[in-house]
Amino acid sequence: MKTKPKTVRISIIGFGNVGRGVAEVVKRKREEIARKHGIDIKIVGIADLRGVIVNENGLGEDAIMKHKTVKKREDMTSLDVIKDVEHEIMVEATPTNVEDGEPGLTHIITALESDRHVITSNKGPLALEYRRLMELAAKRGKEIRFEAAVGGAMPIISLVRENLAGNGIISIEGILNGTCNYILTRMAEEGLPYEHVLKEAQEIGIAESDPSKDVEGIDTAVKLVILANSVFDMDATYKDVAVTGITEITPDALKLANDAGYMIKLIGEVNGDGSLKVAPRLVPKDDPLNVGGTLNVATIKTDLAGDITVIGKGAGPIEAASAVLSDIIRIYS
Amino acid sequence: MKTKPKTVRISIIGFGNVGRGVAEVVKRKREEIARKHGIDIKIVGIADLRGVIVNENGLGEDAIMKHKTVKKREDMTSLDVIKDVEHEIMVEATPTNVEDGEPGLTHIITALESDRHVITSNKGPLALEYRRLMELAAKRGKEIRFEAAVGGAMPIISLVRENLAGNGIISIEGILNGTCNYILTRMAEEGLPYEHVLKEAQEIGIAESDPSKDVEGIDTAVKLVILANSVFDMDATYKDVAVTGITEITPDALKLANDAGYMIKLIGEVNGDGSLKVAPRLVPKDDPLNVGGTLNVATIKTDLAGDITVIGKGAGPIEAASAVLSDIIRIYS
Repeated sequence: MKTKPKTVRISIIGFGNVGRGVAEVVKRKREEIARKHGIDIKIVGIADLRGVIVNENGLGEDAIMKHKTVKKREDMTSLDVIKDVEHEIMVEATPTNVEDGEPGLTHIITALESDRHVITSNKGPLALEYRRLMELAAKRGKEIRFEAAVGGAMPIISLVRENLAGNGIISIEGILNGTCNYILTRMAEEGLPYEHVLKEAQEIGIAESDPSKDVEGIDTAVKLVILANSVFDMDATYKDVAVTGITEITPDALKLANDAGYMIKLIGEVNGDGSLKVAPRLVPKDDPLNVGGTLNVATIKTDLAGDITVIGKGAGPIEAASAVLSDIIRIYS
Repeated sequence: MKTKPKTVRISIIGFGNVGRGVAEVVKRKREEIARKHGIDIKIVGIADLRGVIVNENGLGEDAIMKHKTVKKREDMTSLDVIKDVEHEIMVEATPTNVEDGEPGLTHIITALESDRHVITSNKGPLALEYRRLMELAAKRGKEIRFEAAVGGAMPIISLVRENLAGNGIISIEGILNGTCNYILTRMAEEGLPYEHVLKEAQEIGIAESDPSKDVEGIDTAVKLVILANSVFDMDATYKDVAVTGITEITPDALKLANDAGYMIKLIGEVNGDGSLKVAPRLVPKDDPLNVGGTLNVATIKTDLAGDITVIGKGAGPIEAASAVLSDIIRIYS
C-alpha cells in the first residue's frame, strides 16, 4: 500500500482477557497492518467495570496497558463511549450471559444505532437475538462480525460463509469447547475419574471454578446456535438445543470405547433440517474430529467440496484477538 | 438479493475433468448463486483439444454436456475465445505442465491482456511464473485466483490470506497429494509393499498409469511453490524445492514407525525463512497432520492464532469445481 493508510478507530467495551488481547495484538501488529492492509487501527475508547478511558486521537500504549490504574472519565459510561466518541468499530468483549444477553446486547444495539460496525466475542447476544441484531445491522448498513465467538482462533464462520461460498452446507459437527475436550482426553489417556481431572483442569486454569457452563454442554450449545443462525439462516436460540454434558462419563466408558477403536467426545451438531444437538458421542480414532487436549474442531459437510475439517485453538486471549483482528481487516478490505 | 443478478460470463479453457466439473457445478448451482450472491454465471465459450464452442449469450446446457459431439467453431482457437468473445472470467483448466507452463501460461497472459479475470486450477504457470503473472494482473487491474490449484476443495490459499489476515505466518506443512497419502495409508494398514499398493491404486483410478509426478513428490513440490509465492511472497520456482518421494518406503519402515506411535507421511513444508522441502516424515499418530486415505491436510503455524489445521479432499472434479465457484463468487462480492 503506497497511499496513506485509512484510520480505523475502535472502542473496546469489556476489558477482560479478550479485550486486553485485542489491545495487545493491535499494539504488536499496528504497523504491519497499516503496511499490508492499508488500515491504521487506533483505539479511542476502553470501557469496563472499572470505568472509561477515552482519547479521540487514539489512546497511548501506556494508558492502555496501565488501564487499571489510569484516571478514569467519571462523567462517561460505556454507552457514552459507544454513542459519543467518534469511531468506526465497537469491539464487544464483555462476558457471555445467556440469560438476557446483557450488557453486551445493549452495547451492540447502541453501537449499530450510532452507526458503528460491531465485532463481538460475546456469545450471549448472538445466541439470543441473532436475527434482530442482523436486521438492525442491515438497516443501518453496518456489519456485525463474530469470528471470535465460535472456536476462538479457528476460522469457522468465515470459512463456511466465504471460502465455501457456492456450496450447500449439509451439517456442521464438532468439538467447540476446549475444557470438555481436555477433560475427556485426560480421562481417556490416564484412566482417571471425571472429578479428579476436573480438579486438575481447574488448578491449571483450563476449567473455571464454576465449570457448569463448560461441562454441562451449555457453552457448546450456545456456539452451535450461532452457527445455526449464521450458516443455516435459522432463528434458533439456546433453548432449541438438546443438551447433554460430560459429567456422567466414566473411565470405564472411555476404556470400552477405546478398545473398540473409538474416543468419546462432546460433539455439537447442527443439521440443515433444523436439528441442534450437543451430546457425548463415539468418534472413530481415525476420524478428523478426533483431536486431543484443548483443541477445537469442526467438520463441515458440503454438497460440492465434500467434508472440510478445521482444527485450532478454541480459546486464549491472543487467539480470540486474532479473530477480532481478521474481522477488522475484512470490514475494510 | 432483490435486485437483478449481475451477469458474469466465463470461458472454460481446457475441458477435462476439472473443466467439465465447473460446467456441471454451474448447471447445478446457477439459480442458487443468482439468488444468494447476486451473480448469474453464463458459460460463453469452451475450448479444448477437440475444438471450440461459443455462444455470446450463454451456451445451452445441451451444447455443454454434449460438447464432444457438438459441431465446433473451426475458425476459432482457444486464444480467439479468450481474446474475442466478451466475458469477465477465463477459467484455465488445462493440464499442469511444469516444464514450460504451456499452454496454460499463454492462456492466462492472453486473458489478462484482454482484461479478463483469471481463475486457474492449473499449477504449471503459477509454479513457474508466479510473480510475472501477479504483476501483469495488478497492472491490468484484474484478479488471478487459484484456490483449486492447491488442495482441491480444501481451502488453503484464501484461508491463510483472508481468514487469518493479521497473522504472521511462520510455516505451512501438510499432505498435498492424495495419491501418495492413499498409498502410504494402505501400506501401513495392510503391511503391503509399495509396488503392490501402487498397482491397486492404479486399478481403482487413484494413481495414474505414469505415477511419477505423484509418487516422486513433484506434484507436492509444485503446490508448495504456489503456497510459498502466494503466502510468503517468495519468488520461488519448482527447482527451489528439495524433493524426496515415497518410492523407497518399505512396509518395515512403516511398521517400525507404527510401533513407536508414528505414521510416515509425505509432507511438504515451507518456512518463512525461505526453505522449501518435500520428504517422507514421521508424524505422531495424534497429530492433526495424521489423516488417512486420499485426504489432504495442511497445518498453518501463525504468530497469533497458533496452529490452524484444515483437512479436505484434495482432488476430484466436483471438489476442484467447488473451489473455482468460490473464487468466482469472491471476485464479485
